[in-house]
Amino acid sequence: MLNIALAQMEIIPGQPDKNAEKMLKFIEDAKNNHADMIIFPEMAIPGYLLGDTWEQPSFLEDCEAYGRDIIAASKDIVVLFGNIAIDKDKKNNDGRIRKYNAFFAAQDGKLIPPSGKSPYPFVIKTLLPNYREFDDTRYFYSLEKLARELNINTEELLAPVKINVSGKEYCIGCLLCEDGWSDDYALAPLSVLHEKFHPDFFVNISCSPFTLGKNDKRNRVFSAQSKEINAPLVYVNNVGIQNNGKTIYTFDGSSTVYSKTGATVHACPAFKETLSYVVLEDIAEENKSIDTTRKENQIEEIYNAVTYGIRHFLDSIRMKKVVIGISGGIDSAVASALYCKVLGPENVLLVNLPSRFNSDTTKGLAHRLAQNLACRYAVFPIQESVEHTISQIENISIQNLYDNTQEHWTVSDFNVENIQARDRSSRVLAALSAVFGGGFTCNANKAETTVGYSTLYGDQSGFLAALADLWKYQVYSLAEYMNDTVYGREVIPHETITLPPCAELSSKQNIDAGQGDPLQYPYHDYLFRSFIERWKKAAPEDILEWYVSGTLEDEIGCESGLVKKLFPTHKAFIDDLERWWNQFSGIAVAKRIQAPPVLAVSRRAYGFDHREAQNGPYYTRRYKQLKEKLLKSE
Amino acid sequence: MLNIALAQMEIIPGQPDKNAEKMLKFIEDAKNNHADMIIFPEMAIPGYLLGDTWEQPSFLEDCEAYGRDIIAASKDIVVLFGNIAIDKDKKNNDGRIRKYNAFFAAQDGKLIPPSGKSPYPFVIKTLLPNYREFDDTRYFYSLEKLARELNINTEELLAPVKINVSGKEYCIGCLLCEDGWSDDYALAPLSVLHEKFHPDFFVNISCSPFTLGKNDKRNRVFSAQSKEINAPLVYVNNVGIQNNGKTIYTFDGSSTVYSKTGATVHACPAFKETLSYVVLEDIAEENKSIDTTRKENQIEEIYNAVTYGIRHFLDSIRMKKVVIGISGGIDSAVASALYCKVLGPENVLLVNLPSRFNSDTTKGLAHRLAQNLACRYAVFPIQESVEHTISQIENISIQNLYDNTQEHWTVSDFNVENIQARDRSSRVLAALSAVFGGGFTCNANKAETTVGYSTLYGDQSGFLAALADLWKYQVYSLAEYMNDTVYGREVIPHETITLPPCAELSSKQNIDAGQGDPLQYPYHDYLFRSFIERWKKAAPEDILEWYVSGTLEDEIGCESGLVKKLFPTHKAFIDDLERWWNQFSGIAVAKRIQAPPVLAVSRRAYGFDHREAQNGPYYTRRYKQLKEKLLKSE
Repeated sequence: MLNIALAQMEIIPGQPDKNAEKMLKFIEDAKNNHADMIIFPEMAIPGYLLGDTWEQPSFLEDCEAYGRDIIAASKDIVVLFGNIAIDKDKKNNDGRIRKYNAFFAAQDGKLIPPSGKSPYPFVIKTLLPNYREFDDTRYFYSLEKLARELNINTEELLAPVKINVSGKEYCIGCLLCEDGWSDDYALAPLSVLHEKFHPDFFVNISCSPFTLGKNDKRNRVFSAQSKEINAPLVYVNNVGIQNNGKTIYTFDGSSTVYSKTGATVHACPAFKETLSYVVLEDIAEENKSIDTTRKENQIEEIYNAVTYGIRHFLDSIRMKKVVIGISGGIDSAVASALYCKVLGPENVLLVNLPSRFNSDTTKGLAHRLAQNLACRYAVFPIQESVEHTISQIENISIQNLYDNTQEHWTVSDFNVENIQARDRSSRVLAALSAVFGGGFTCNANKAETTVGYSTLYGDQSGFLAALADLWKYQVYSLAEYMNDTVYGREVIPHETITLPPCAELSSKQNIDAGQGDPLQYPYHDYLFRSFIERWKKAAPEDILEWYVSGTLEDEIGCESGLVKKLFPTHKAFIDDLERWWNQFSGIAVAKRIQAPPVLAVSRRAYGFDHREAQNGPYYTRRYKQLKEKLLKSE
Repeated sequence: MLNIALAQMEIIPGQPDKNAEKMLKFIEDAKNNHADMIIFPEMAIPGYLLGDTWEQPSFLEDCEAYGRDIIAASKDIVVLFGNIAIDKDKKNNDGRIRKYNAFFAAQDGKLIPPSGKSPYPFVIKTLLPNYREFDDTRYFYSLEKLARELNINTEELLAPVKINVSGKEYCIGCLLCEDGWSDDYALAPLSVLHEKFHPDFFVNISCSPFTLGKNDKRNRVFSAQSKEINAPLVYVNNVGIQNNGKTIYTFDGSSTVYSKTGATVHACPAFKETLSYVVLEDIAEENKSIDTTRKENQIEEIYNAVTYGIRHFLDSIRMKKVVIGISGGIDSAVASALYCKVLGPENVLLVNLPSRFNSDTTKGLAHRLAQNLACRYAVFPIQESVEHTISQIENISIQNLYDNTQEHWTVSDFNVENIQARDRSSRVLAALSAVFGGGFTCNANKAETTVGYSTLYGDQSGFLAALADLWKYQVYSLAEYMNDTVYGREVIPHETITLPPCAELSSKQNIDAGQGDPLQYPYHDYLFRSFIERWKKAAPEDILEWYVSGTLEDEIGCESGLVKKLFPTHKAFIDDLERWWNQFSGIAVAKRIQAPPVLAVSRRAYGFDHREAQNGPYYTRRYKQLKEKLLKSE
């Protein structure tokens, strides 16, 4: 009987000392619970998303030293774990230290090398991911490169590890490879291992961030595969958060065991550090799955990921208090309800910052939100300061020293819009949060972030953009979910959900007169999503082709009939498309460069996950031809 | 006789239409000048640093279509050029469209496929760089991967292109590979080509950003290699700027031709679009080099790169006017002199923004700087606004709705420092630049950027951080160079250069009393450089080891004897090291995430070139042991 402990631990990236300490504790616990084997996730010692800390030799050697501690602790238990491995004798061809993302197996205080032809006593990661947020190929030498160098087939390096427990030999297929999105590709190493060696079971150690919908897909893929190869599969993933600067990822763990019939026989809870156990022989033949399907309504999954991400990010930067500017609108209301849940209402200060353009309606809604949440609240009028800035600019003379003349400048209405937004954030919220001993939040959603509908150093700023990977429709769903389920009462006022979104930065943006944002979210949410979240990113040429062929709404996933309703003419449609495409590829890029970190939820978040250059908008030749034809036909 | 035109063109990234148009014009010019062959740089049609625009299929197909126009234009001339190539029939293993960074040769309106075993009519880039700012492995399928897939040696795909001009056949070794830093590695494909095929000459097309000192090194390497293989080498690189969001790179061109004796026989000027000519037979045997060595004093090279970068970045975002906050200190003075040179003094507004902490000394220096530059100038006191903010915060009552109490908060001296910095940038400079119709600059240097010695939404903000890849000593050199050589008179006041740097944000930072910044630049510049610019990045463990062994000053390159002078005790040394390491890996990361784009000069700039995560500081076990031993010995 092989009693296996799954260590779904929280890994703290960049802190090998803390991770190793926890691993030693988990090993002790597992031994006390009579486990024969404990399995830790990928890169359990260093963490995974470390940026160029991977280029500090002293850090790498420190991780190896802690790795030796873990190996030494493998007395009376088999320990499988992920760590970085260095080959000091071999350099990368470009002169950097050669590093491997490695899978170690240890028993009786010693490493158990894999069978086969590997020159190393560890298994090397294969299929290094080089898309989305991953930079594996920047840092890690791959199994494929090593195979080429040794002039052997990659398969020769994919050999299993053989262990002996209580007189019985187990042949374990050790997998350390991409596991997420692309079925056949990611599972190739498993098939190779199976065909060549027929291991008794497979272990896949992973450090795989949460993405909406990923877990269900992974379950489908792994289940089908373990059935096909007729062997149990143990998948161990970590929890916690990791970031690469511009984007913060949550890790949901969701470690799972599949029997040889493809049944899901054990599943660790999402977003929770656990040490749990399965007995291999007990589950190997099981053919009944436990229920792991996540709710069809994804909003619960979003709520869990976002609150987990906020909580852990605040912990990681040791921030205990936040200030939130609230307008009476939906985004800041949702942010307020989230942060109050995470930090407790006494650690959240909501501030309403009215200028003369803010309606009694939204001021009243802001106040009601604060009352409902029973947190800290202040009203901080900005009109006086804004007028001071305007009058200072208009009264101070600009000296033109090149011709000894003087000038006075005039502030336009558009200038005043941005002056207000910056006054709120950079003058008031930044100062208030410093006095409070915390930070202030950025409440931008993904649609605004896509087209830069925000003011730099104004509402674009903050220490974290927790909602910036959620489309407006998801923000609304989250509001309703929190009222209905999380709080069980109306904390976000009903009118905040039903009023049209409006910035209230000028007399033209009068919410009481029904004048809202220029964004038509039920259409633009989906249009923008096609620019960023598809594998094959849509650009105006695609959009126009779909428009012409009548498949646009299907392709982008918005409500049927909406396009005709919003855009009575081809010209209106094209003008709208170009307006937002210009923003998306123009000023919005400049704003995103200076935007706060985004908490990732979707399969493509802004930041490091979506790399972009400040190159300006571009229209293909074919787009221009399509457009000309369309406009002529009208 | 083969008359070769080197098209050192300015490539506009992401604008295939403009690039193709210019290429067609260059082809016409070359034909008029009786060229038999014209050579364009790598990725001449799409540009190179495009971020995930590489994932827009319509963009890729547009580039291919413009490529067909270039091929069609190869009548009576051989055209060699770089472009993206798609293989629609093959996918990357992970489902994305397969793309190659490709080298095309065309003649008589048709492609000339390379000889050898390639399945494609173009040459594929090899040795995709996966360090620094490069993301090649994210986007492009490599020659090595293709070779593995075809089950052939990589050499089989490195075959030359054979062309026929006026009845004579030329065998051309076409190189598209990393060319910069690591000699043997990058030149391997050249050696392979040479040994296997003995081409008549080699062509290396490139898109290689400027880095301080890179050109001299490249000349040494290429010269030695062309001598060794006894064949001429034609290197064609582009000019212009390209960016990946957080970092902006200049491309200096510096296209060069080497004879078979290793002599540098032709060199295009740096940072200049040129179409120039060499006759192969005339230069092939030449053994006398022209002088291409750059000035030993690197400051001219820095000045050229920085002004080129500023000019082209402003052009690319269509910005014609800037506002610069000037303190009387060195960084803002150097920025002012640079921007006045680039834009003309009438398009530059210098603004001095004194609070009560600013001395008459620095206010006077600011005024003198503006007079010397004869640009626009204004004095914009911030004291009233700062006091308004303080009193507003202290007077408004915070309502604690959870227990129905009220509070009043007090603003600390430290809070006031940051309130001033944000008042200057986000309230005044942002508004003024919007009224002026331009942007405002970030004047931070690399030492400040390293440790976050700046205020977010304050002096950290701006549309471009043009000096943020220059250490303080380089900023001083630039000031002297501009006074002595560029302007030929004292535009930056002498006292601005000699006064100790000081933020003047509190009564404790009194410049007239000699109280300056906490940074000791002659040491910290070099300490910080070791954290970021070395291939093997230094961390506290390395620094302490060097300190103990007495090699620290040698290792980091600062003045000898300085460390003992600055730090009388081990404890003082360690406290300083930990103070700045904590800042560097802590709050400074958070600030850099929201910092403006950095103009790259060094071999490692902040931004995309130095990837980092907000993970907090870390000290290795060995560091802690060294430290303990050292402190005990005292």
